[in-house]
Amino acid sequence: MLFKTLTVSEARKRIANTLGAPAAEFAPLNEALGRVVAEDLKSPEDVPSFDRSTMDGFAVSAADTFGASESLPAYLRVAGEVLMGRVPGGVLDTGEAWAIPTGGMLPEGADAVVMVEHTENAGPDTRGAEKWVAVLRPVAPGENVVRRGEDARAGDKIIKAGRRLRPQDIGLLAACGVNSIKVRKRLTVGIIGTGDEIVDVGVVPQPGQVRDVNTVALAAMVEASGGKPLLFGVVPDELELLQRVLREAVATTDLVLLSGGSSVGTRDLTLRAIEALEQATVLFHGLAVRPGKPTVGAVAGGKLVFGLPGHPVSALVIFEILVRPFLEPELFERVPLRARLRRSLHSAAGREDFVRVRLHVENGELAADPILGKSGLIATLSRADGLVRLPLDAEGAAAGEMVDIFLI
Amino acid sequence: MLFKTLTVSEARKRIANTLGAPAAEFAPLNEALGRVVAEDLKSPEDVPSFDRSTMDGFAVSAADTFGASESLPAYLRVAGEVLMGRVPGGVLDTGEAWAIPTGGMLPEGADAVVMVEHTENAGPDTRGAEKWVAVLRPVAPGENVVRRGEDARAGDKIIKAGRRLRPQDIGLLAACGVNSIKVRKRLTVGIIGTGDEIVDVGVVPQPGQVRDVNTVALAAMVEASGGKPLLFGVVPDELELLQRVLREAVATTDLVLLSGGSSVGTRDLTLRAIEALEQATVLFHGLAVRPGKPTVGAVAGGKLVFGLPGHPVSALVIFEILVRPFLEPELFERVPLRARLRRSLHSAAGREDFVRVRLHVENGELAADPILGKSGLIATLSRADGLVRLPLDAEGAAAGEMVDIFLI
Repeated sequence: MLFKTLTVSEARKRIANTLGAPAAEFAPLNEALGRVVAEDLKSPEDVPSFDRSTMDGFAVSAADTFGASESLPAYLRVAGEVLMGRVPGGVLDTGEAWAIPTGGMLPEGADAVVMVEHTENAGPDTRGAEKWVAVLRPVAPGENVVRRGEDARAGDKIIKAGRRLRPQDIGLLAACGVNSIKVRKRLTVGIIGTGDEIVDVGVVPQPGQVRDVNTVALAAMVEASGGKPLLFGVVPDELELLQRVLREAVATTDLVLLSGGSSVGTRDLTLRAIEALEQATVLFHGLAVRPGKPTVGAVAGGKLVFGLPGHPVSALVIFEILVRPFLEPELFERVPLRARLRRSLHSAAGREDFVRVRLHVENGELAADPILGKSGLIATLSRADGLVRLPLDAEGAAAGEMVDIFLI
Repeated sequence: MLFKTLTVSEARKRIANTLGAPAAEFAPLNEALGRVVAEDLKSPEDVPSFDRSTMDGFAVSAADTFGASESLPAYLRVAGEVLMGRVPGGVLDTGEAWAIPTGGMLPEGADAVVMVEHTENAGPDTRGAEKWVAVLRPVAPGENVVRRGEDARAGDKIIKAGRRLRPQDIGLLAACGVNSIKVRKRLTVGIIGTGDEIVDVGVVPQPGQVRDVNTVALAAMVEASGGKPLLFGVVPDELELLQRVLREAVATTDLVLLSGGSSVGTRDLTLRAIEALEQATVLFHGLAVRPGKPTVGAVAGGKLVFGLPGHPVSALVIFEILVRPFLEPELFERVPLRARLRRSLHSAAGREDFVRVRLHVENGELAADPILGKSGLIATLSRADGLVRLPLDAEGAAAGEMVDIFLI
C-alpha cells in the first residue's frame, strides 16, 4: 500500500471527518469537574433574581442624594431595615432610606446603596422618635448594587460546548441552578504495548531488556485528559497474538493506542495487525512531524486506532498533539503561550517540530531553553515544562525569536 | 483585639511557620498521577542498563568506519545478529559488524551503530559464503546509541520533592523501576458555608435568597488541587450553631474553610466562631489584597482555619493565592506567565491586586484583556483565563506593560 504521509493538521481533519458526534450523558454538578460540556449551556433564570446590595449601608433612591456633601448632607428618614434572605417589608418612598446589609434585597423604589461609611446617624428629628440618616456623598443609580440578571440573564449562554469544566465554571452553574449537565461521555482508551524486549515495571530487566514505560505513561496521559485507560498489557512481537489482543481492544473500548516498537520490523507488525482488522481504513501512515514520524492512524468499525512510535518521548508528544485533542476538544482552540527562544533550533521545511523546553522568566518575559536529547530518553520529557512548536513552513527558529509554547 | 492586616507573602510565611512537616504515605505508581512527591526521588539503577541502538542498522566499532564514503566504503564482515531483548551471542571484533534492530543491545566491542540506510549489502566475499556489508559513511563513537545510564544513572535525583506528578514523570519512574512513591497525604479540607440568604443549589431561591455558590466552587477547587473536600453544609447566621459545626470540622479534617458572608455582621460572626475554638490563634485578620481583604487566617490545635470573604470571586481568588499553595506546594515556585496588558489598571500602593483577564495571542505575544466586574459576579471568573498580579509596590499598570499572569 501507499505510504500516506500527512501533516498534523491534515491528520486531525481526516480523523475528525471519520468521527460521529460524541456520545453524551448527564453528570450531576458535584461530579462535573473536569468533564467536557456536550452542548452550549444557558442560564434557566436571572441571577441574581433581584437587585442586591454589595455593601453594608442604606438603600436609597439615588436622586435623593444628588448634591449631598459633608457640609450639606441629604437627610433621609430611615423607614425600615432589610433582613438577609427576606423580602423587604415595604416600599421605599422618596426621602426615605432603608438599612441594608451586603447581599440584602433592595426594596421597591430603591435604585442605589449608600455605604455606611458615607453616612452619619442623624438621630430622631424634632417631630418625634423617627430615625434619620445624613448622607454625606451622592450615589449614582445602580451604585453598590448587583442588578437582577447582572451575573447571568435567563437564556444567556453561560458555558460553550467543548469547555472542560473548571471550579469557577462549577460555581457559575451552581449560581444558575444548573444541577445536571450534559457532558461528553468519557472515552475508554485501550492501550496495548508491544515488544519482545519490554518487561513489566515490577520486574528487574535482564541485560537486553527494558521496563515498560509507554503503556504506563500513556495510561497516565489518558487519565490526565479525562479519559478512562484500559490496559491490555505488553504483547510479544507475534502477529497472530497481536491481532487477537487488538481485536479485543477495538471491540471493548472507544479508541485504541498501540505503542509499537521503533524498529522497522515491529512497525510493520503493528501496521499489519491494524490492516487485518475488520472494516479497517488506514487514514495515514507517517506524519510530517518530529518526533513521531512513524505514527499510523486508522479507523476500524468506526473506532480510531493509533499506532504510536516506540520511543517514549515520540509516543507522548504524538499523544499530546494528536490524541489528546479528541479527549479534550477545547485544546483545539487553546491559545498557545509565547516565549523567547534562548538558542537557535533547526527544523526542515515541510515538517512540524516539537522541541522540549524549560521555561523561566527573564527580562520581564517568558524564556524557553531547549532540552536536547534523544527521543528514547523519557527523563528529558520529565525535565521539560513545555513544547516549542516550529511550524511546517519554518526552517527552524533563531535564538531571540518568539515561539509558540504548549505546557505539558 | 487588634486588626492584623498582612501582605499575602507575610500571611504565607506566618501560615508556613505554624505548620509541621506534611504527613506522607506510599502510593503505587499507577495511582500516583497528580500526587505530590514527599522527598527527592533517586533512580535505584542505571537506565537503560546497557548500551542500546536507536536505529535499525549495524553495530560497529566506530574506528572501523573512519574515512568511509560512497566512493570508498568500509567493508565489514557481518559476524552476527542482535535479537530484541536478548544478550548478543558473542563479542564484536575489529573489522566486524552485527545486524541490530532499534532498541537492541550493543555487543561488547561495539561503540556505535551505522543506520541501515547508510550501508549496502556487499554479498559473500570471494573467500566463501560469509556475509559482508559496505558502510558508506563514517560514524562517531556513541552515534545512534543510548549509553547505559544515559536516561538516569543509579543515585541520580530524578524528581524533586514537592513536584506534582505528571504523566511523563510517571513514565520516568516506570523506566527506573520505582513502583511505590512516598507522597504527601492528601489533605482533607472541611468546607462550611454561612448565610441566612443562602439556599441549596437544588432549591429555587425565593426573592431575597441566592443559591450556594461558594461551598460548591470551593469543593471543586479543593478537588482540582489534589485535596479531598468534605462539605459541612450552609449554616445560618447563629453563633452557637456555627461554633458547633466549626468545632466538628476542625476535629475531623486537616484544614477548614469558612465561607462567611460579606456583611460586617456575618464577618464578625465568623471571626467570633474562630476565636472561640480551643487553642485558637488568629494569624491575620485582613489582607493587603484585592479582592479578598476581609480574609481571616487562624490556627487551632495545629490546624489551619480560613475565614474566606463572601463574594464568590474574592473567595476563589484567595483560595487560589493562599490556600492552594498548601495543597500543591510546587505552586510556590511556579513561574508566572507574562503577558502584555491591553488596558491600564489602577491599584493602590501597599496592596496586591489580582485582576481577572482573558488571554489571546497578538503580534506574536500573549495579550491580556482585563475583565471588569464586581467580585460578587461569578460569571466574570468563568469568563477569565487567568489573573494578572499587580504587585504591592505598584500603583497599577499601564496599557502596554508586561505583567505576571497566573492561569486559573
